[in-house]
Amino acid sequence: MARILTGIQATGRPHLGNLLGAIEPAVQLSAQPGNESFLFIADLHSLTAIKNPVELEQNTRAVASAWLASGLDPEKTVFYRQSRLAHYHTELTWYLSCLTPYPMLANAHSFKDKAERLSDVNAGLFTYPVLMTADIILYQADYVPVGKDQKQHLEMARDITESFNRVYGEVFKIPAEVINEEVMTIPGTDGQKMSKSYNNYIDIFLPENELNKVIKKIVSDATPLEEPKNPDTDNTFKIFSLVGTPEQVAEMRKNYLAGGYGYGHAKKELYEAILTRFSRHREIYNYYFENPEALEKQLKIGEEKAEAVARKTMEEVRKLMRFA
Amino acid sequence: MARILTGIQATGRPHLGNLLGAIEPAVQLSAQPGNESFLFIADLHSLTAIKNPVELEQNTRAVASAWLASGLDPEKTVFYRQSRLAHYHTELTWYLSCLTPYPMLANAHSFKDKAERLSDVNAGLFTYPVLMTADIILYQADYVPVGKDQKQHLEMARDITESFNRVYGEVFKIPAEVINEEVMTIPGTDGQKMSKSYNNYIDIFLPENELNKVIKKIVSDATPLEEPKNPDTDNTFKIFSLVGTPEQVAEMRKNYLAGGYGYGHAKKELYEAILTRFSRHREIYNYYFENPEALEKQLKIGEEKAEAVARKTMEEVRKLMRFA
Repeated sequence: MARILTGIQATGRPHLGNLLGAIEPAVQLSAQPGNESFLFIADLHSLTAIKNPVELEQNTRAVASAWLASGLDPEKTVFYRQSRLAHYHTELTWYLSCLTPYPMLANAHSFKDKAERLSDVNAGLFTYPVLMTADIILYQADYVPVGKDQKQHLEMARDITESFNRVYGEVFKIPAEVINEEVMTIPGTDGQKMSKSYNNYIDIFLPENELNKVIKKIVSDATPLEEPKNPDTDNTFKIFSLVGTPEQVAEMRKNYLAGGYGYGHAKKELYEAILTRFSRHREIYNYYFENPEALEKQLKIGEEKAEAVARKTMEEVRKLMRFA
Repeated sequence: MARILTGIQATGRPHLGNLLGAIEPAVQLSAQPGNESFLFIADLHSLTAIKNPVELEQNTRAVASAWLASGLDPEKTVFYRQSRLAHYHTELTWYLSCLTPYPMLANAHSFKDKAERLSDVNAGLFTYPVLMTADIILYQADYVPVGKDQKQHLEMARDITESFNRVYGEVFKIPAEVINEEVMTIPGTDGQKMSKSYNNYIDIFLPENELNKVIKKIVSDATPLEEPKNPDTDNTFKIFSLVGTPEQVAEMRKNYLAGGYGYGHAKKELYEAILTRFSRHREIYNYYFENPEALEKQLKIGEEKAEAVARKTMEEVRKLMRFA
């Protein structure tokens, strides 16, 4: 049985692109028997960027609610906030820091990219690959699914872990990355990749009227209503094809090609398809987001399971370091 | 009532210079009514240099035994190993790291001094001023007695603490340094300042015959036995004047000036004076060093008191950061 560990950034309410491209595939993966999934909200990492505690708390609640809304089962997956196990993560981070050469961190791409505005870089950001290493090995993870940009950090994690095992004894598993080469790219309202930074995203958790407004703004060309249209180059159709049923998508394709069917019609169908596809998501999301106590209860399930693992690891670590 | 906090390096068995120049003055200071002393063995900092856990444990035991031997009363002073409260120190360190500009650490003299052999610098050493800040403010210390070389680190500690208070709320006292301008310099066996790195130190905890050998090696000039000698330029006399009673010192001075009194005689008297002055120290030191359980009991007294303070601080911190 392999243990798969994934960190989730606490960047606020996920949009349609996050849901379809990352959250739903991860939830499906975590539901597969034979693997054990650890999924955590990396709110200690968020501290390197977010200084407002209310904002960070809201982000964390939104992310947790969205994952639960996407079908994550806290009884089957270990789902937790990193901050609630902060003392395990940070204690291990210090021990690993003392085994991490300064030049290794200074040569990280993620740090070099920031070399021109060093005054904006805080010490947490500089040392974050060490915390990331602790996040992984504290739970003895076998695999870490990451994007290509994280490949170097996983290499560093392995180097640091090997140093610890060499100096103090073989406590830790050496983690391997799983690079997802073909992440599904979800088109945004302007046809570019859907992303918060491009402001072209569809937030499926918006109130209905606001959601409708966003969908109406999807960029279309100027083909008149009565003429045939190319579904394969149109943004509304592309997004619809990801949320409608296969029958609905086939039907809409026919309508596009036949003519006499306008983008306004397609947008109305997309709006309705999103409401249908995500009605249960919206309900669950709103329930947890509005009921912090109910959300807390769900998170505590995973935090207790995570704590049992982290405590055991740190007991071994302290024993080997003769700090027990 | 002011709270004074002092970190003690876990560098192994203290020598006569450490005892007379640092440990005994600190123990006397901590015994003064009106102040509250926190004295901790900085074994988490030692990890930046010492990779052998057995060596570090031995060092810590030696240092703790020596302080107890020097009269430290764990009921009156909060005396603890930093490692036993590691999770408080390191958790706070992470929060502070995210508020510490990278250039602040890169500009520290202590780091710049190492810039030519960066491959020897680990991330722990680079970020150690942040851990030092956590060490101080976790216990809401008012004053930190430090050498001049630590002045910049205290300035950094204040800056980092002020950032935290500004961002999250006024939790922490802003610590002030107390620079001890005139640290008593104890001469070594060669007349230079007594120091492990010069290998000119007298280890008063040595078995008697070994101690005697070290004393016999004190450097003297070649004045013949029968001639008068200058006590003020002689190393044996200088050291004797720090450990003998005033009467003994006056007597030896007379003997030097009178002639017919050799350096060998003086060394024999010094050996005896050390055994007399430190007989109780030697006894207590050996007792604790040989009885780890008894030592553990003494340290636990302070560690429980320290924990109560650290726990309270971290509860406030987590509440303000909305991690509670």
